[in-house]
Amino acid sequence: MTTALQTEAPAGCRPGAFGNATHLVCRACGAKSPLGPFYACLECFGPLEVGYEYPEITREQIERGPKSIWRYASLLPVPADIATFRSTDPGFTRLVDARNLADDLGLKQLWVKDDSGNPTHSFKDRVVAVALSAARELGLQVLACPSTGNLANAVAAAAARAGIKSVVLVPSNLEQQKILASAVYDTTLIAIEGSYDDVNKLASEIAGEEEGWAFVNVNVRPYYAEGSKTLAFEIAEQLGWRLPDQVVIPVASGSQLTKIDKGFTELIKLGLVEEKPYKIFGAQATGCSPIVQAYQAGQDVVAPVKPDTIAKSLAIGNPADGPYVLDVVRRTGGKITDVDDATVVENIQRLARNEGIFGETAGGVTLGVTAKLINDRDLDPSAETVIINSGDGLKTLDAVADKVGPKTTIPPRYDAFEDFWKAAK
Amino acid sequence: MTTALQTEAPAGCRPGAFGNATHLVCRACGAKSPLGPFYACLECFGPLEVGYEYPEITREQIERGPKSIWRYASLLPVPADIATFRSTDPGFTRLVDARNLADDLGLKQLWVKDDSGNPTHSFKDRVVAVALSAARELGLQVLACPSTGNLANAVAAAAARAGIKSVVLVPSNLEQQKILASAVYDTTLIAIEGSYDDVNKLASEIAGEEEGWAFVNVNVRPYYAEGSKTLAFEIAEQLGWRLPDQVVIPVASGSQLTKIDKGFTELIKLGLVEEKPYKIFGAQATGCSPIVQAYQAGQDVVAPVKPDTIAKSLAIGNPADGPYVLDVVRRTGGKITDVDDATVVENIQRLARNEGIFGETAGGVTLGVTAKLINDRDLDPSAETVIINSGDGLKTLDAVADKVGPKTTIPPRYDAFEDFWKAAK
Repeated sequence: MTTALQTEAPAGCRPGAFGNATHLVCRACGAKSPLGPFYACLECFGPLEVGYEYPEITREQIERGPKSIWRYASLLPVPADIATFRSTDPGFTRLVDARNLADDLGLKQLWVKDDSGNPTHSFKDRVVAVALSAARELGLQVLACPSTGNLANAVAAAAARAGIKSVVLVPSNLEQQKILASAVYDTTLIAIEGSYDDVNKLASEIAGEEEGWAFVNVNVRPYYAEGSKTLAFEIAEQLGWRLPDQVVIPVASGSQLTKIDKGFTELIKLGLVEEKPYKIFGAQATGCSPIVQAYQAGQDVVAPVKPDTIAKSLAIGNPADGPYVLDVVRRTGGKITDVDDATVVENIQRLARNEGIFGETAGGVTLGVTAKLINDRDLDPSAETVIINSGDGLKTLDAVADKVGPKTTIPPRYDAFEDFWKAAK
Repeated sequence: MTTALQTEAPAGCRPGAFGNATHLVCRACGAKSPLGPFYACLECFGPLEVGYEYPEITREQIERGPKSIWRYASLLPVPADIATFRSTDPGFTRLVDARNLADDLGLKQLWVKDDSGNPTHSFKDRVVAVALSAARELGLQVLACPSTGNLANAVAAAAARAGIKSVVLVPSNLEQQKILASAVYDTTLIAIEGSYDDVNKLASEIAGEEEGWAFVNVNVRPYYAEGSKTLAFEIAEQLGWRLPDQVVIPVASGSQLTKIDKGFTELIKLGLVEEKPYKIFGAQATGCSPIVQAYQAGQDVVAPVKPDTIAKSLAIGNPADGPYVLDVVRRTGGKITDVDDATVVENIQRLARNEGIFGETAGGVTLGVTAKLINDRDLDPSAETVIINSGDGLKTLDAVADKVGPKTTIPPRYDAFEDFWKAAK
């Protein structure tokens, strides 16, 4: 396979369908494949990712773009005219200068990248938007996924907006609120009598059997995963085109963490930010911490676990990017560690109390791990730190149900209020 | 009272504490009062609003500002350095080019201003941010409100971020999910054994008795209400600095509708947009439609009703801005009308299905009314239309609970899927 061949759009696709992306490359053996609906290397069955041949790209070009991930279109496997297509236009979420939380933790400078501001209130809108573009350019007609929540919301909403069919597979015992928040978009929501692992397996089977389906996290996964790079791009741009010293990232499959590293690396290579060392830290819940276990054992291979944690959006027992997460945290001088569910809940409250940000359980995991890393002197308190809040507390209300509530209940009379207030002061 | 006196900051406030605002003015009798924690006219007890003496303000000045409501600081009663204070930095939410929905409704051009993208996912973040600034500048130490949901979320989050005390009063029979989504910010949430009207009455009593309290929608209401002008400013700027032909706005107290009109008027006066006629339409739920009833009866006075609708965020039976809403819709050639709860639910689904936007019940009211106005030929289908989605469907999941769900439930086997899929096609 030659590079010349790979720079062309795949058969049947229009020229420029994937922007500056030129090929797929195996993350295990490095073999190149042409762009297409492929996710496994033909040589070694390793996972494929998107490769590029970038022209010169300037900050000004990016800054002139829309206030969404599409300002980074030239750094994604999407066409240059992507913003003219109907999508949920995610991204460009707030980077919050978290001064209260920094004081609480004893950090000099802390930022919270708050992805609860995305259209369906999680970072999944980013990856789904890129997968949707790939599906459209490849002529696939159904956008699909196995999911337990955030991804289902994002796929159903994006497909509705784009006017294409979607199919979402969920475990039949999923909480009704998560079913409603996807089904409202009129997606074909199929409840599967089984665990999430059963759902996942069935999804792979369907992806193999059915023509024209884009399972966002299966057969178009190489494109999908690139969407997470936009978190790195936005952090750098919002800091004034520079990289932070330390980043703490929630880890499920591990894709978000490895792609934030890829994003930073690309910005340096393109001269969009000054080269500097940065450390990447991973955060897992103790009840699903297979990568932490491998890290602590000094291993390169991640042994699957059976998840048991309230942090359902991170509960992937067999993380696809496990070895790559280990590589990134070791290479950058970071670490991956975990906190238990009680600590997760405390840290949901801590984020809300300090910054007015109600994160989902994954946010509690990330902040809890951040505090632990500070205590263990793994994070430098004087170095500039960014943490990711990847989703919204409204989707995981149960986590705090026993912990917060009214301070009192009184009759509607001023004297009753006065008695309470005097005692409270 | 002279104008000279009113241009100064109130006693004890720093110069420029309220930006270009110079006085309060009675909306009933026109009498002027100095800036301060006042909300009722001393002459006639009419409601006060903020008056300004604007310098020249340019589009370029605004466009250089932050990507939040603070880009319009010069048009709000806030200091020029407002963006340096800790707030939730709301606003600059998406204006969605709703082409699917436009086709569905038979409209030529429709935009959805999607305020579910705000920090606590409703437009209340806008008004609370301005009220918080007024409270701080006036030296008030407690941010408070009576509320049944969105406002409580916004007050609790904003106070947490600003690092000041907050007190939120809610009816004790409020849904637990709404209590959790406020209490998580560690606000002093007080449950009141009574109806929302009882809660509201108690809040006014506390505002009168306690020193140093800022009840956002009571004693700092003139400042609070100005926050809704930012919806008008953003719509105009996002359209490329021009006004739409028609706007459909949900109506509870009516403040949002009257302030959007005020915002458009100010933009014209300042030469920031070209002068042109626009029509403003109001949307209520039939179960709480006191202003619609007054409109249809040709009256100027609004008789209170007892609310009975699923659109709880619009369920104000005695709307403070009722007469002013009637004035705006009549003066601009618009109208105010209502839809029943079944139509509200259908239109929550219609918005989600077409545009991937999951609005709360108020969004269903607004879209339902829009469709009704088109059917009744009150809205011109060839004129450019904007509708407001003021909140998030995740907060009113119960509304769709009986309407949406899985299309099927199957065992985790490909043949089971295949049977379903063949039949579905």
